[in-house]
Amino acid sequence: MSKGRMEAFSDGVIAILITIMVLELHSPHGSDLSTLKPLAPVFLSYVLSFVILGIYWNNHHHLLQAARAVNGRVLWANLHLLFWLSLFPFGTAWMGENHFDTVPTAAYGVVLLAAAAAYYLLQRTIVALDGPDSALAAALGRDLKGKISPVLYTVAIPAAFVNRWISVGLYVAVALLWFVPDRRLELRPQKA
Amino acid sequence: MSKGRMEAFSDGVIAILITIMVLELHSPHGSDLSTLKPLAPVFLSYVLSFVILGIYWNNHHHLLQAARAVNGRVLWANLHLLFWLSLFPFGTAWMGENHFDTVPTAAYGVVLLAAAAAYYLLQRTIVALDGPDSALAAALGRDLKGKISPVLYTVAIPAAFVNRWISVGLYVAVALLWFVPDRRLELRPQKA
Amino acid sequence: MSKGRMEAFSDGVIAILITIMVLELHSPHGSDLSTLKPLAPVFLSYVLSFVILGIYWNNHHHLLQAARAVNGRVLWANLHLLFWLSLFPFGTAWMGENHFDTVPTAAYGVVLLAAAAAYYLLQRTIVALDGPDSALAAALGRDLKGKISPVLYTVAIPAAFVNRWISVGLYVAVALLWFVPDRRLELRPQKA
Amino acid sequence: MSKGRMEAFSDGVIAILITIMVLELHSPHGSDLSTLKPLAPVFLSYVLSFVILGIYWNNHHHLLQAARAVNGRVLWANLHLLFWLSLFPFGTAWMGENHFDTVPTAAYGVVLLAAAAAYYLLQRTIVALDGPDSALAAALGRDLKGKISPVLYTVAIPAAFVNRWISVGLYVAVALLWFVPDRRLELRPQKA
Repeated sequence: MSKGRMEAFSDGVIAILITIMVLELHSPHGSDLSTLKPLAPVFLSYVLSFVILGIYWNNHHHLLQAARAVNGRVLWANLHLLFWLSLFPFGTAWMGENHFDTVPTAAYGVVLLAAAAAYYLLQRTIVALDGPDSALAAALGRDLKGKISPVLYTVAIPAAFVNRWISVGLYVAVALLWFVPDRRLELRPQKA
Repeated sequence: MSKGRMEAFSDGVIAILITIMVLELHSPHGSDLSTLKPLAPVFLSYVLSFVILGIYWNNHHHLLQAARAVNGRVLWANLHLLFWLSLFPFGTAWMGENHFDTVPTAAYGVVLLAAAAAYYLLQRTIVALDGPDSALAAALGRDLKGKISPVLYTVAIPAAFVNRWISVGLYVAVALLWFVPDRRLELRPQKA
Repeated sequence: MSKGRMEAFSDGVIAILITIMVLELHSPHGSDLSTLKPLAPVFLSYVLSFVILGIYWNNHHHLLQAARAVNGRVLWANLHLLFWLSLFPFGTAWMGENHFDTVPTAAYGVVLLAAAAAYYLLQRTIVALDGPDSALAAALGRDLKGKISPVLYTVAIPAAFVNRWISVGLYVAVALLWFVPDRRLELRPQKA
Repeated sequence: MSKGRMEAFSDGVIAILITIMVLELHSPHGSDLSTLKPLAPVFLSYVLSFVILGIYWNNHHHLLQAARAVNGRVLWANLHLLFWLSLFPFGTAWMGENHFDTVPTAAYGVVLLAAAAAYYLLQRTIVALDGPDSALAAALGRDLKGKISPVLYTVAIPAAFVNRWISVGLYVAVALLWFVPDRRLELRPQKA
């Protein structure tokens, strides 16, 4: 029951964040195909953020599926993650509207880094509750992807000041890394 | 559990998309009945999109009801569908605000086509997991409606450049085709 | 399962509608108490619509609780209700921003009437599925409130052209009539 | 079932309120770091409201978890709480955009006080239904925090007219007081 409600609340927040981001795609005033052109960077940043939020939802789903229980500490670690995810619409809009300009692109990386750290913290909190011998701890193993992602983001943020496309490339690379759902936590098809 | 959460997340996204579309119905500044008149095309495109999103929700509901299980692949196929559905508010607003002008009407068809293809893909992914001998595969059968819809959309998109009302007519026709919920997947009243 | 998802989707839509209405309460530009004054009619119309949507949610909850099952027909009757409810933010904003002017106040009544009719239809559809001997049919009985409300709305709409406060008074009266949750469907405290 | 749906609806509303507040963080027009500076008070008021809404969600979760049952009276007490919570985005935006000016800061306190009173009322309503000998009544005990918070808010509102930072300090103090989830209601890790 408790776990279910935390999942439902997180689903709600993530679903709303995804759809709020799409509000930045203001329908253009003209009805010409060319009026869509200025929307291209906004659209691309939306696609990137949609995929990243999709990854978070997916991994969150697998993580909670594997968790045995939650407590107040986990609820707050989860709210902490949701806080950083809630800054995605802002970060996405700022980067998209400024055509991936240097500072907004670096700022987007800061949001990504904070969210990745918050996810890591949530995972640690759940594992601590489940115990080091739990199926979850075993399934996560060394958690290479979880450790590499923040490192790549940490590189990407200053890299924007050299060339912002390095940063964007790194953001995309991390997304691709995670695109495959976390097979460690997905042992077999899950029944309803 | 797993299936339930994917359903809940999809419900959340679709519910928000429907209500975000209604935000385009800006309350007019005057309080005269005539001030409602310019809203007519926006309202009509809202009704059309509401019905189409309603159909998606309805069929999604029946599809998931019949599915035995989901896995990571299904989660992504579902997110892919939600991505295209998330462009409905944009497509609807652009078409409505421009009084069903040619390019926006064709663009709306592109969103419809992409969503239909994504739904087909989701269905295939679930059937592949359930197996060719599953009740779901049998219930879907040849899936005529699922195959005709993308064809009609593909016709409707270029048709907008001949006469946009042909396109709108085809969009409405596909909606009517699906309005009746998929009886193949609905064998008997479903208990809670 | 099926019933649960229809409830969840309706909850989502109603929750979003309620919170979307509050977006009309734009925070004023000044920081003086007097800057709140022009918001008064917007706030009052928000309170009225919040209560009415709360009543719908409450009754919907009790109705579905009592229903034995749902089918495709019920899903569409429910979507039809949600469509009219989705026009609440528009109707509320138009009436509030125009200080309960005649035409917007009458238009608000049209939305209320359509929603009441849609609720009645949903109820009929569920009772038809459950059967005339069902507990639900017995509990609803003659359904006086369900029959009086549309009548009062039908009176309130033209009455706005005589004196709009008659209409507002009738809207409030119907809300008070329903404020008490439908005891017919609530026989005892419901366990989780 | 009944309890579950009331939880789901509340989750939906709170999730939307949190994400609606973030819409006030308009992405600045420039792409300079300095363009973020005027957003600081808006951001800080967002953080405060996010934490407070997080506390409400958390406590609501624990309260409902412990409740044995709900009835129509509880549903309305819950809607009453959601009404006051729905004014958070307005209060937050007004306070943030006016850089914690006196009147908006006091007005924010009024919303906090009303929400705290509504929560207290909801709690009383549930305890009254569960009975004075219930586990919930025992767990709540004297409910010191629940009684101190409204007192502190009542002090904070007029204090804004002396020095608004006293008020803000008191709002933060109450949040810190509640930050620790209500251990009275959390006896052990809760399984799904």
